[in-house]
Amino acid sequence: MADEEMVVTPWEVVGEIDYSKLMEQFGTQPLSEDLLNKFRKHSGELHIQLRRGIFFSHRDLDWLLERYDAGEKFILYTGRGPSGNVHLGHVIPWLFTKHLQDIFDARLYFQLTDDEKFLISQNLTLEDTLHLTYENALDVLASGFDPKKTFLISDVKNVQTLYRIAVEVAKTVTYSTAKAVFGFKESSNIGILFFPAIQAAPCFLESATSGRNVPCLIPAAIDQDPYWRIARDAAPKLGYYKPAQMHCKFLPGLGKGGKMSSSMPETCIFTIDPPKVAEKKIMNAFTGGRSTVEEQKKMGANPHICPIYHYERFLFEPDDAKLAEIENTCKSGGLLCGEHKATLAPKVIKFLKEYQERREKAKDVVSDCFIDSCDRKLQEALGLERF
Amino acid sequence: MADEEMVVTPWEVVGEIDYSKLMEQFGTQPLSEDLLNKFRKHSGELHIQLRRGIFFSHRDLDWLLERYDAGEKFILYTGRGPSGNVHLGHVIPWLFTKHLQDIFDARLYFQLTDDEKFLISQNLTLEDTLHLTYENALDVLASGFDPKKTFLISDVKNVQTLYRIAVEVAKTVTYSTAKAVFGFKESSNIGILFFPAIQAAPCFLESATSGRNVPCLIPAAIDQDPYWRIARDAAPKLGYYKPAQMHCKFLPGLGKGGKMSSSMPETCIFTIDPPKVAEKKIMNAFTGGRSTVEEQKKMGANPHICPIYHYERFLFEPDDAKLAEIENTCKSGGLLCGEHKATLAPKVIKFLKEYQERREKAKDVVSDCFIDSCDRKLQEALGLERF
Repeated sequence: MADEEMVVTPWEVVGEIDYSKLMEQFGTQPLSEDLLNKFRKHSGELHIQLRRGIFFSHRDLDWLLERYDAGEKFILYTGRGPSGNVHLGHVIPWLFTKHLQDIFDARLYFQLTDDEKFLISQNLTLEDTLHLTYENALDVLASGFDPKKTFLISDVKNVQTLYRIAVEVAKTVTYSTAKAVFGFKESSNIGILFFPAIQAAPCFLESATSGRNVPCLIPAAIDQDPYWRIARDAAPKLGYYKPAQMHCKFLPGLGKGGKMSSSMPETCIFTIDPPKVAEKKIMNAFTGGRSTVEEQKKMGANPHICPIYHYERFLFEPDDAKLAEIENTCKSGGLLCGEHKATLAPKVIKFLKEYQERREKAKDVVSDCFIDSCDRKLQEALGLERF
Repeated sequence: MADEEMVVTPWEVVGEIDYSKLMEQFGTQPLSEDLLNKFRKHSGELHIQLRRGIFFSHRDLDWLLERYDAGEKFILYTGRGPSGNVHLGHVIPWLFTKHLQDIFDARLYFQLTDDEKFLISQNLTLEDTLHLTYENALDVLASGFDPKKTFLISDVKNVQTLYRIAVEVAKTVTYSTAKAVFGFKESSNIGILFFPAIQAAPCFLESATSGRNVPCLIPAAIDQDPYWRIARDAAPKLGYYKPAQMHCKFLPGLGKGGKMSSSMPETCIFTIDPPKVAEKKIMNAFTGGRSTVEEQKKMGANPHICPIYHYERFLFEPDDAKLAEIENTCKSGGLLCGEHKATLAPKVIKFLKEYQERREKAKDVVSDCFIDSCDRKLQEALGLERF
């Protein structure tokens, strides 16, 4: 994999990822010590994903915190392309987003891009992506968001809420620009060409409906960054603040190299996996271990290429001292891969069981969390009340 | 003008129009005697616009009438780009469409493309085009449609009703095709690239909501034809009938050559023009007359380049014998331009006064004629009911 060229787009992530190079390529900023210190004023101890550099890059977070300190609350916006079941790789940034919602008491707009996934997939019908929107929405809520402050958006079912802003964005974006940012081709369909405007719309929804400029922070994996460049270019032309971003890294899959990806289900832990299935996947995972136990005891293993270690780091071992101990004993040969898998598995199972319970309970409230495109007050605010 | 190259696109009509060449270029069929005879079985005497070749071309009208005879009712679909006030040139095909609604007892979907006009105009805001949608909708109803069988669609306010079908269409249309059909450029914005899918959607709305395949007939000026080519290509891929079309010619403006166009308001008769204003425009119109009265009495005038004659032909002289008399006396020099203008003016004024009265009354019912994007039954039929 190391020789494969790095490609990171909203639709494709391949090769070994050099996050410093990505920041340079995308023109984003690292989360500096200074900025994290400012953040700490609001959060107390830094969240696991900040302490460990999982969220590692940003745009305008400093500005956003200044506005917040000056009394301007911001909204959060993130999303999900409903092309299949949710796996742990998707959940990672949601858990951090929930943390942001908690500490900043922020409203969250969560977009489910059932139009996009239909438009780019050979195999998915709109029925499929709409069904997945519902299923994935249960996962969103199972991640712990406050249902009272969380507004789910199905692009297809709630387009009425987005379209007016989307056409205003679209008017500012030429085919030439969209092609340069997303790599569109002559064979791209005209729906996917328009879609960046639909994905930009929620950035400005609170501003458009409240009648005042409301800052927006988007926590998401860095592959989505091209969309925010489009949104940021459009913002001043429409009189809105540019949305700020925080970018995270990808959770590795259980195979050798690469991010967790639904296209290789055996290397994915899905949130709806029965505990036994998840356990089996973990026990079969690639690791950074040596060929033989003897060799490993003598020379140690490599935690940095090992998904088992990374799962501890991303989520399952919140205690930094214990994580350091895992890393050290792994390196020194004191921790064998089979042992490590056997200690990780129950943590994952506990997580899944609790998640699945919350996911079940979410069925009672999920309908009411979708932003209602028919809501009279919202329609009025967008100038969409009946003639 | 005769030397200017003919250009006919949905956004531009210039040069002297050769309708035979357009049929060839667009690949449409002439309305043959044989087909008009089949039509006459439903209409009795042919409508003025068929007798006089104003509607002159079609696609699949023969098929549509066969389906109708076999018991399959069709829907009508036409529309308007709300970029300004409505003039007589817009009203001509609507009057024929009303005739179709009457004789075939057909439901009419009427689309007001406030998104398109915003997207292609440097000067219009969405507030502007939404306001014009309302104003133009009054004109639509003033044309005599049955409000109970007429469903107005504002793209922006009623997008919920269109989007699901639009993305299904969009998935079948590549940028390459759209570019070839519409002449899109690198500088075209991504909203207008998607728009053909929005304009195609109403063709299939009745089928999508009724759960059975319903034929669709689109009466419209021939410049809109590129949109229907997109819709027709998409139709079989989505399991729908291809929409049939009837194409009409353009009403000339009051100046020398060219179609009636709002960009030259002095050569336009707007439906809201006060009678005195309309009268003055008529009295100032270009004609097919000679330089002097003497010359004209001796050599006669040319009705075929004269808007005054064409207004009689398109609308104001329904009696064919009287129209022939006008033509003959004009050609022979027996009818002077000033006299002719003075006889046309009161007919136009009478038309405008009655139109304006109906337009005023339309204010009471127009809101209820807009297709309600929140209508529960419609949402359900489109699979857009709440999760």
